[in-house]
Amino acid sequence: MPGTLPTAMALDALDTPALLLDPARLDRNLQRLATRLAQLGVPLRPHVKTAKSLPVIVRALVGQPGGVTVSTLKEAEECFRAGITDILYAVGMSPQKMARVASLRGRGADVTVIVDSVAMAQALRAQGEIPALIEIDSDGHRAGVPPESALLLEIGRTLGARLRGVMTHAGESYQSKTPEAKRAMAERERAAVVRAADRLREAGLPCVTVSVGSTPTAMFAEHLAGVTEVRAGVHMFMDLVMAGIGVCETDDIAISVLTTVIGHQAEKGWILTDAGWMAMSRDRGTAAQDADQGYGVVCDVDARVIDDFIVTGANQEHGIIARRGTGEVDLSRFPIGTRLRILPNHACATAAQYDAYHVLAADGRVHARWPRFGGW
Amino acid sequence: MPGTLPTAMALDALDTPALLLDPARLDRNLQRLATRLAQLGVPLRPHVKTAKSLPVIVRALVGQPGGVTVSTLKEAEECFRAGITDILYAVGMSPQKMARVASLRGRGADVTVIVDSVAMAQALRAQGEIPALIEIDSDGHRAGVPPESALLLEIGRTLGARLRGVMTHAGESYQSKTPEAKRAMAERERAAVVRAADRLREAGLPCVTVSVGSTPTAMFAEHLAGVTEVRAGVHMFMDLVMAGIGVCETDDIAISVLTTVIGHQAEKGWILTDAGWMAMSRDRGTAAQDADQGYGVVCDVDARVIDDFIVTGANQEHGIIARRGTGEVDLSRFPIGTRLRILPNHACATAAQYDAYHVLAADGRVHARWPRFGGW
Repeated sequence: MPGTLPTAMALDALDTPALLLDPARLDRNLQRLATRLAQLGVPLRPHVKTAKSLPVIVRALVGQPGGVTVSTLKEAEECFRAGITDILYAVGMSPQKMARVASLRGRGADVTVIVDSVAMAQALRAQGEIPALIEIDSDGHRAGVPPESALLLEIGRTLGARLRGVMTHAGESYQSKTPEAKRAMAERERAAVVRAADRLREAGLPCVTVSVGSTPTAMFAEHLAGVTEVRAGVHMFMDLVMAGIGVCETDDIAISVLTTVIGHQAEKGWILTDAGWMAMSRDRGTAAQDADQGYGVVCDVDARVIDDFIVTGANQEHGIIARRGTGEVDLSRFPIGTRLRILPNHACATAAQYDAYHVLAADGRVHARWPRFGGW
Repeated sequence: MPGTLPTAMALDALDTPALLLDPARLDRNLQRLATRLAQLGVPLRPHVKTAKSLPVIVRALVGQPGGVTVSTLKEAEECFRAGITDILYAVGMSPQKMARVASLRGRGADVTVIVDSVAMAQALRAQGEIPALIEIDSDGHRAGVPPESALLLEIGRTLGARLRGVMTHAGESYQSKTPEAKRAMAERERAAVVRAADRLREAGLPCVTVSVGSTPTAMFAEHLAGVTEVRAGVHMFMDLVMAGIGVCETDDIAISVLTTVIGHQAEKGWILTDAGWMAMSRDRGTAAQDADQGYGVVCDVDARVIDDFIVTGANQEHGIIARRGTGEVDLSRFPIGTRLRILPNHACATAAQYDAYHVLAADGRVHARWPRFGGW
């Protein structure tokens, strides 16, 4: 398999900080969403923006039709180089990017883009052959047109034969704490995009694709009537933000940062490590959740959570670990040179700080290095 | 010159997001600190952790002794490959990193490390020849031993002939809003490390190097008696955090992110761009300052600040620009395809999201691409 190391390495042989990936947890997470979507009768178009690594994407595509979602044209190009041709570029299109999309299409990639303005629909029409979905705003989170708007039909008519369908992303689902809230958000996402599809079809416009997606709504939707595909990416790795809203458990989180203790501040009960914000990212996605996890939850080298220890502060290459709340800290548990693993707030942001995953085998050794692609 | 492009490119020819560097501002910033330190009679050991790019580091070394500060061994290795031999690795040493430092030293790099524990001093002693500075805690920010502590002398005696001196970093200076507070912090930093040096010398221990540094204290120190070198890195580029505490003006900031408008939400007065947190980083360093700049300050393509427009929200590949406070927004000023430039909160974090700088010439065109090194 590509990326397999000639000899398995012990974790102690890795330089820190390093990004670890537990493929058993990855596979369990993939299976969980696949099972759920099979029950709902809708296939997955995995979003590659979290993993950005071909061995992970290949696993996420098992049992699915084979199309992917991307957030950058770099991701599209990397997927196409690996033989993936059905690609949805799910960030609003700009005129400057048309040539690069057209080039990919000219080489055989079936790239679809998304639009939410008449101006961009006109530009696509002038360009010729790039197909598009209309982005629907289902929750006020960022982009898209309301399903009931006149604008929807105007964009649809402007696109004409280039129109492939509609898509939406319920980004606000990340704020949904209860199962009921997530189910309600999933239904809101579904209803918005299905309504938009119905209106386009009633106007005589083509609307083959009806695409929804976010990890929380994908995991909690009760039914997806009228939807043709689901998009999700964070489900592969999960993270503390997802755990904090009840989408997964802490021990579902498939990536962690291996770090080394480099010092202490005994009076403060601080353990200093070499995993600062460069290693964890600056993401503080749990800050507004019920349990603020700082810059991450501390585990021992075998991935067992060390109760109540979190990364409370981060400089560029220094992490500060402390116990949540008060209470004595026995620093002798963490001598200099101790290896720890930190679970990330936000898998997309933490993984983006690295150029590869170190992949663990069941024996706890690193048996492969899976490269990531970054940039745009 | 390495990195010079065969043909200068217009900004419109760049794919976005892209990281721009204005070398005129860079040179002005470098000159400003060099002049200040020349007045104080202390040389600069520039910190490469912000720029991580050899053409920038070479400029920062002009007129200085030639030594650098690094925050990772990757930075040390890259500097050494470029012929820089005097290298201070200014993050607490761990046992696992000794072999890599010893390898660099074996090839001719004069790498000095820092320690703040007897355990690590003993490990260095057992290893043999790696020289060290003792890290002094001057402000309670993170690592280091107090200058008056018994521990200081114990570490010094353990290091013995390997002891080169002392260093400190007044990280808390980033919270110093007034000139008086920054001057006081600089004096506190200086006094702590000079006192530690005096105590070591009184105990008969060698202490050649007395090293201080942070950009705010370097810019505001009134005198540096007893100090042998200053370390700084952010001074090269400056950023909104530095502007927010009065260390620079907004138009001193030498890097910016070029982005493209991809959509609008008219009712909300939002302008959507392709520079989300992947392009800006998740750093929110201005959040606790008097002026919260969101994810960055918006400029036109010629780097003129567009009053009161900031990046108020960021998803992975979407930036949301809005006007600070209330008031109508004339979105017709920002049609889809418009190019904008965003000034970053924190230069170190934003630059780390890119593998290169696009370097501007006086004519506003890109005339060079300077690669960055990342990782560890």
